[in-house]
Amino acid sequence: MSKAGTRAKSRSGSKLRSARKSAPRKPEIKNAFYAQSGGVTAVINASACGVLETAKKYPERIGKVYAGRNGIIGALKEELIDTSKESARSIARLRSTPSGAFGSCRYKLKSLQENALEYQRLIDVFEAHNIGYFFYNGGGDSQDTAHKVAQLSEQMGYPITCIGIPKTVDNDLPYTDTCPGFGSVAKYVAVSTREAALDVESMCETSTKVFVLEVMGRHAGWIAAAAGLAGSSTEEAPHVILFPEVSFNPTRFLNKVKRTVKKVGYCVIVVSEGAHYADGRFIADAGSKDAFGHTQLGGVAPALANMIKQELGYKYHWAVADYLQRSARHIASATDVKQAYAVGKAAVEMALAGKNSVMPIIVRKSDKPYRWTIGDTPLAGVANVERAMPRSYITRDGFGITDQARKYLEPLIKGEDYPDYVGGLPRYVRLKNVLVKPKLKRFTLRD
Amino acid sequence: MSKAGTRAKSRSGSKLRSARKSAPRKPEIKNAFYAQSGGVTAVINASACGVLETAKKYPERIGKVYAGRNGIIGALKEELIDTSKESARSIARLRSTPSGAFGSCRYKLKSLQENALEYQRLIDVFEAHNIGYFFYNGGGDSQDTAHKVAQLSEQMGYPITCIGIPKTVDNDLPYTDTCPGFGSVAKYVAVSTREAALDVESMCETSTKVFVLEVMGRHAGWIAAAAGLAGSSTEEAPHVILFPEVSFNPTRFLNKVKRTVKKVGYCVIVVSEGAHYADGRFIADAGSKDAFGHTQLGGVAPALANMIKQELGYKYHWAVADYLQRSARHIASATDVKQAYAVGKAAVEMALAGKNSVMPIIVRKSDKPYRWTIGDTPLAGVANVERAMPRSYITRDGFGITDQARKYLEPLIKGEDYPDYVGGLPRYVRLKNVLVKPKLKRFTLRD
Repeated sequence: MSKAGTRAKSRSGSKLRSARKSAPRKPEIKNAFYAQSGGVTAVINASACGVLETAKKYPERIGKVYAGRNGIIGALKEELIDTSKESARSIARLRSTPSGAFGSCRYKLKSLQENALEYQRLIDVFEAHNIGYFFYNGGGDSQDTAHKVAQLSEQMGYPITCIGIPKTVDNDLPYTDTCPGFGSVAKYVAVSTREAALDVESMCETSTKVFVLEVMGRHAGWIAAAAGLAGSSTEEAPHVILFPEVSFNPTRFLNKVKRTVKKVGYCVIVVSEGAHYADGRFIADAGSKDAFGHTQLGGVAPALANMIKQELGYKYHWAVADYLQRSARHIASATDVKQAYAVGKAAVEMALAGKNSVMPIIVRKSDKPYRWTIGDTPLAGVANVERAMPRSYITRDGFGITDQARKYLEPLIKGEDYPDYVGGLPRYVRLKNVLVKPKLKRFTLRD
Repeated sequence: MSKAGTRAKSRSGSKLRSARKSAPRKPEIKNAFYAQSGGVTAVINASACGVLETAKKYPERIGKVYAGRNGIIGALKEELIDTSKESARSIARLRSTPSGAFGSCRYKLKSLQENALEYQRLIDVFEAHNIGYFFYNGGGDSQDTAHKVAQLSEQMGYPITCIGIPKTVDNDLPYTDTCPGFGSVAKYVAVSTREAALDVESMCETSTKVFVLEVMGRHAGWIAAAAGLAGSSTEEAPHVILFPEVSFNPTRFLNKVKRTVKKVGYCVIVVSEGAHYADGRFIADAGSKDAFGHTQLGGVAPALANMIKQELGYKYHWAVADYLQRSARHIASATDVKQAYAVGKAAVEMALAGKNSVMPIIVRKSDKPYRWTIGDTPLAGVANVERAMPRSYITRDGFGITDQARKYLEPLIKGEDYPDYVGGLPRYVRLKNVLVKPKLKRFTLRD
């Protein structure tokens, strides 16, 4: 029904356009393009859900919403998913389904100078499919792309309303209180650290004395900092957090571990994948070589564990959460899910309100209770600006988080938003992802 | 109140003993000893909860329940935790708290011949504290210990009722349908695999093509098999499961990975830590050396990932769940929690019914719907017998699970049993763990 509905609308939409040239004030019906970009999260589909459910409420303005298959690549290759082919229930289930339901990609558009061809192609595809709204759901690079498309569409006289939708587990976008996706990783990491710490504590008399958990975060320690919430003070596990913001000093680290084991009997360590020495070498790379002599890729946790074994002789265990942490929709933060949906909804409402080249942001009104609202910021200011974690969030010794960090982080992991389960497993939706018939000739991507 | 109650009872109990020598039929009040042994799980405290709440219902038979601090070591060192000092609410919360609340240990008692001294000490401690019931919550070794204590107490004429309580994530105890602890790890691994697979799938066009998840299981592939539930057939992720039961053949493995990537665009691999070559070498050990030339300990996932990178050139990610999987009470199986509580409860009821040297087991009545009841089996038969996973649970090509395996595994992960949350984190109880004043001279453990 709703499908037929939107289709009918968009048809009459095209008629309108030809018929009512005389009345330009009456806004035309335009189709919308939505794409997911970069590393996916537990809640990026909640943003998609916000976009799609909201767009459906304005059939007199928005015809179809086409989703890019594998992000912006879908636009370049004219692989457009017709979301009107999905049932309302499937769309609703996106809210509780992790990862990118339409596919995402790591594909950064170069500058207009370097690669005008790709931007030209985007405009061509948008024009061919009567697309007037461009919703791009991603991190800093994606906001940069959205900004460039906005600039270009003006220059080329094909108006497209471009709205960026924030997403990243790295929590490194500026101006917004937090980035949808981060709160859920933060919750996963805090919960997992608390659970593993209880395990180590209960066995430490005769077994494992040191446990190392590696979490994501190449440039910023936001995710590692969230692990600090597992304990209510720096006295409790995790006893040591290693941030990319603090250069790794093996001697100080080993002393801290030794002191902790002597004092409490065990030591729980959480380390950012991006933790590095003063000279910039990643701890992960400094460590091991494989049987063929190649430096082994990844694995700061095992590198630290071996260092501890050799220098202190403690029995250890280590874990690397990797994708488990950013896809863990089963333990998503309810706050994060709400915010992810809200920015998707707001993106559509801003577009319809005539805003352009902006990104909805989360504005914190108060910490306790956590109150927030949606604002917006120009894409020009967001593009390629990384928000670093304030040094004031890290304790003076560099191994823990401060009360200021707790005040900021605590609200972001609040609330549980469990998916439905069938047969003991979460019911995650798989969309039909029906592609629209292409209208243009094929386009080959640069390698 | 209840605390006072039990204390009163146990005092009047000692009076009884002296007063009513004439009426031996009237059972005396004896104290009970409970200990947690070996690797802890997400639900071993649920078994403790079952023991403590049930014992409290029989004040005319059971006085205090003393828990061993750090397992059997607590008995040897006479470090007995007085569980009557805990509130009823704290005891109730054990049901939803992971790991070992009283501490566990890896400490196997040797044979009676080799180490009569330790067994003698156990009996001395039990006698000194009027302990007549010995509840030992652990895996095969622990059941062996419980059995030996039963034999010895008879020989020494100090009667102790010994009941083993099954526990192990390895699911390798005989006679019982499953081991409490396994169902929850199985659920964690199946859910995490499903989530990570969605992540990889959505990014595979331009990013990671292969994801490797390492799970526990040194000797048996039960946990790896559970990951197979993430997909409804061997066509879905996980595409490759590596079991300890099937010798690792690099050529066949790499071909399977290559075929899978060509066919579906990505490949999800789940591997048991115990996966090994035909000659018995663990894949983990075969791989990398650290900067100092030592073979790197652990890490079959990175070893496989590097192999794939070098031979096939695919971009990869890998995760090692380690303790996260066995402590993940936040995603415990409701079936597992019920069964863990039930075997604890049954242990006490069996002891009071005059059974001795037995272990409660889970008896499967039907698969769909899953119906089970509690039975018992003699410890003599359980001790040191490992249940292997039937080869019929593994597909002919050795990379997946059969329908027979699904039929067995599916019921075990059914149902969710969420802990309470406070401030976004699970409320796990921390007990006071008050020690009883020692009555004997100190005892030094062998190293």
